[in-house]
Amino acid sequence: MRVLITGGTGFIGRRLALTLLERGRLADGSGNARPVDAVTLFDVTAPAVPLPADPRLSLRTGDIGDPATVKALFGNDVGCVYHLAAVVSAGAEQDFDLGIRVNLEGTRNVLEASRALGTAPTVVLASSVAVYGGDMPKVIGDDFHTTPTTSYGIQKAASELLVNDYSRKGFVDGRALRLPTVVVRPGKPNKAASTWASSIIREPLNGEEAVCPVPPEQEMWLLSARKAVDAFVRAAELPAEAWGKNRTVALPGITRTVRQMVKALGNVAGKAATARIRWQPDPFVQRIIDGWPTRFAPKRGLALGFTADDRFEDVIQAFIEDELGGRFVA
Amino acid sequence: MRVLITGGTGFIGRRLALTLLERGRLADGSGNARPVDAVTLFDVTAPAVPLPADPRLSLRTGDIGDPATVKALFGNDVGCVYHLAAVVSAGAEQDFDLGIRVNLEGTRNVLEASRALGTAPTVVLASSVAVYGGDMPKVIGDDFHTTPTTSYGIQKAASELLVNDYSRKGFVDGRALRLPTVVVRPGKPNKAASTWASSIIREPLNGEEAVCPVPPEQEMWLLSARKAVDAFVRAAELPAEAWGKNRTVALPGITRTVRQMVKALGNVAGKAATARIRWQPDPFVQRIIDGWPTRFAPKRGLALGFTADDRFEDVIQAFIEDELGGRFVA
Repeated sequence: MRVLITGGTGFIGRRLALTLLERGRLADGSGNARPVDAVTLFDVTAPAVPLPADPRLSLRTGDIGDPATVKALFGNDVGCVYHLAAVVSAGAEQDFDLGIRVNLEGTRNVLEASRALGTAPTVVLASSVAVYGGDMPKVIGDDFHTTPTTSYGIQKAASELLVNDYSRKGFVDGRALRLPTVVVRPGKPNKAASTWASSIIREPLNGEEAVCPVPPEQEMWLLSARKAVDAFVRAAELPAEAWGKNRTVALPGITRTVRQMVKALGNVAGKAATARIRWQPDPFVQRIIDGWPTRFAPKRGLALGFTADDRFEDVIQAFIEDELGGRFVA
Repeated sequence: MRVLITGGTGFIGRRLALTLLERGRLADGSGNARPVDAVTLFDVTAPAVPLPADPRLSLRTGDIGDPATVKALFGNDVGCVYHLAAVVSAGAEQDFDLGIRVNLEGTRNVLEASRALGTAPTVVLASSVAVYGGDMPKVIGDDFHTTPTTSYGIQKAASELLVNDYSRKGFVDGRALRLPTVVVRPGKPNKAASTWASSIIREPLNGEEAVCPVPPEQEMWLLSARKAVDAFVRAAELPAEAWGKNRTVALPGITRTVRQMVKALGNVAGKAATARIRWQPDPFVQRIIDGWPTRFAPKRGLALGFTADDRFEDVIQAFIEDELGGRFVA
């Protein structure tokens, strides 16, 4: 079967694609292991870093907000769709209409094209803890309501609802993952309000200065890239019965202050690395971040077998291995 | 100013219109009392019962799912929009695409047309306790998550999210009411899965047989038509600060079993009336109803000054006064 990954040239999409090609198989929601014969990455532009030369891997570019473009991606061989394409948090906040088009209409287009296949393919949505917001308890439980205070969060929450209903109707076999902030991302900062959470680790390891727009006591709910990719594979393979009526799950993560993150960086790479962080408060970023919860009791996620990281040092070490070829600037 | 009521020829829309015309004023979210100079009812067809002859009252018909049609309804004088147009629960379950078009795209069209005015008009959305579903506690609190198990519920939950975000962005001054099942509706049964809750009162009072598709022990969360109209007026007039970040509220209601409802009918109209109810289980209706919660702790709604009914006999008596001209068949 073919796996389609929207937003596929992004960091997670790319790693997920390589993981699936390496595995060579992916179970569906009925427990049938299916060969992964092809992986199509769809994104708005071609990747900055060329894709590996694998005849099973292909790239398509276009606008996820255009129904015909999305429909044209879906051949009858598509068995699983990972829908990662999104305008990220600060981006959707700055351009409301673009956020609606990509994050809400994009999801609808993916669900409609999946439905049109008539085979109820697996659809895994990348959602986010940004679906929470407003007045929150100190620890968020699985049945706490979603009253997001960002457009990105609203669009993801609405997308989750649609994934649930398309699944209930039997149009798709959907699953939605509420991802913590994924660290450490390679490459350049993006428009996510959380982009600094990667920058403050990545740039110092590259011998560059990083700007941290939030104070050391800021807490974040975090997940490593490795665990995120594992979660996307697991999400597709879990039997439909395991999900029941609710196809959304908040993934387990770890809560760390920025201070703890920086300390871990020091433990891995030394004080010269941490000295490359410049602390410069940004009220726009802070206002978005303030709306995000940082502590969870993700019982359902744990019961479904998703796992969090242990030590933050290990998260940094994994980044060095996976993305920096094992080298960093001390 | 003009008040626009979508779904305006329905039972609640009509009564709301007449109430607003009688009041002659409606405050906005800043506390300014504004004269109601005109009320436009928009609906898919003209009403079966002619509208009263009031020069301030006008009717427009069309498709709420068509953006241009909706935009054309919005003159610069529109200060408040009541968005009641919807494909009801069983209807949206039977025709998924129609439900999406009317209940989700319709809300988007109303919000976009309101936003285009540039005056941030008041928008009051009729939502529903159908936004709840799945695994639920015995009593639903205000911060319980919405995992609906009907397309109608999903579409309403997504609409609430959009009302919240359009309000947060300052595009509209939105409010969304999670209505209990409103009883007693006049006229004929509709496609709502709860339509029998009115039928079992209305038809016997008219000397006609009613079919009850659920057993006597079935509980329902109920609100009278009078209280519902009061709530729509109050929702528009509450200051924006009172709502805070969350523009959605679950309205207070009362929990009654069908047995209690029928007993109240007997108390008001006698045993001959209750004998006109025929008990005939309907699995399709039961399956939808089973997904609805029946007990709530609506603290926020009460704090915002919304009120529930007291005796169910009074609800029936009010229906007899308001809709039957004080007469019924004993």
